[in-house]
Amino acid sequence: MPKLVDHEKRKKQIAEATWRVILDRGMEGATVRNIAKEAGLSLGALRHYFSTQEELLIYAMDLVKNQAEQRIYRVIDRKLPPKEMALNMLLELLPTTEETRAEMEVWFSFVAYARHKRAGVHPYEDGLFDGITRMVHSLNKAGYLRDGIDLDAEAERLYALIDGLALHALLAPDRLNQTRLSEIVGNHLDSIWQETPQKD
Amino acid sequence: MPKLVDHEKRKKQIAEATWRVILDRGMEGATVRNIAKEAGLSLGALRHYFSTQEELLIYAMDLVKNQAEQRIYRVIDRKLPPKEMALNMLLELLPTTEETRAEMEVWFSFVAYARHKRAGVHPYEDGLFDGITRMVHSLNKAGYLRDGIDLDAEAERLYALIDGLALHALLAPDRLNQTRLSEIVGNHLDSIWQETPQKD
Repeated sequence: MPKLVDHEKRKKQIAEATWRVILDRGMEGATVRNIAKEAGLSLGALRHYFSTQEELLIYAMDLVKNQAEQRIYRVIDRKLPPKEMALNMLLELLPTTEETRAEMEVWFSFVAYARHKRAGVHPYEDGLFDGITRMVHSLNKAGYLRDGIDLDAEAERLYALIDGLALHALLAPDRLNQTRLSEIVGNHLDSIWQETPQKD
Repeated sequence: MPKLVDHEKRKKQIAEATWRVILDRGMEGATVRNIAKEAGLSLGALRHYFSTQEELLIYAMDLVKNQAEQRIYRVIDRKLPPKEMALNMLLELLPTTEETRAEMEVWFSFVAYARHKRAGVHPYEDGLFDGITRMVHSLNKAGYLRDGIDLDAEAERLYALIDGLALHALLAPDRLNQTRLSEIVGNHLDSIWQETPQKD
């Protein structure tokens, strides 16, 4: 295996160890020392991959974002009917599996952490608002949404609904299981969907 | 001033000092030592009012909740028309003023904190979901909501919308100012409201 691949693979393993530490102890436990221990590396070996804690945290956070993006691309590749595609893309942003639950828990930890540190960690600039805005505009352009909708306000409403559901599903997973989340996001899409689609 | 009032007043001052410490340094800075310093008290004097850090944090958190409840009761007392009353009650749950912004920042800090501590701090049991569910059911009973709405799913959707907007307004206050928040929550109420009210 070429050295570069090895290097990236090891960085990813360290990022995953970082997530486990955050899930277990919160951000206040995510010290370089604890992460090195979790990853089974010496402090010196870890510093070979990430020279500062900030660099490591940014990498670990970007990995959460990239994984969500990859899942959304896989939904797009399934070439579902438009409403089903929209629903499935949005469900990828919610904690419905053990993997996505851990990801989102880590993400909210980063959001809370970034409020009180002036570090280079900007979890809020996650591109999600832009992505949802583009989705709403392109569904409308294709004729799927009801006439007279204020598109930017709808994007804001959908974005808040998704992050609110993500937070509540983390905190009350029994009430907000995958079936329930799918119903609620489905109801929401129904409420903005053109009842007689102009194209399908 | 009777001694009991004095005691409660001092506890409230300490709780407010706790908020200021949380806003400034995050939950990890909210040690009894830092809070005593912020409140201008010795550690011993602080322990006279709160014997443990947990007791103090629970009190400070309940104060956030009580203040929001008081604001909502004041909205109810204004005897507004139903849709306006609903809108104004919901806006009291969003960070639209310096005071409510600080409250909600403290609240989200508690939520993040409680995820990783097994302490007796349960910010999620805030009664908000129950309150919103009751509101949706009573609006429906009075004939204000559209026919055929799944009331519990609507309550879940509205609750997620409100907490999502609260989080986004904390993180992007310029985009989500009071006017914009009011528009978005207003649009949402319009979308579930009976267009020709049966009673008014």
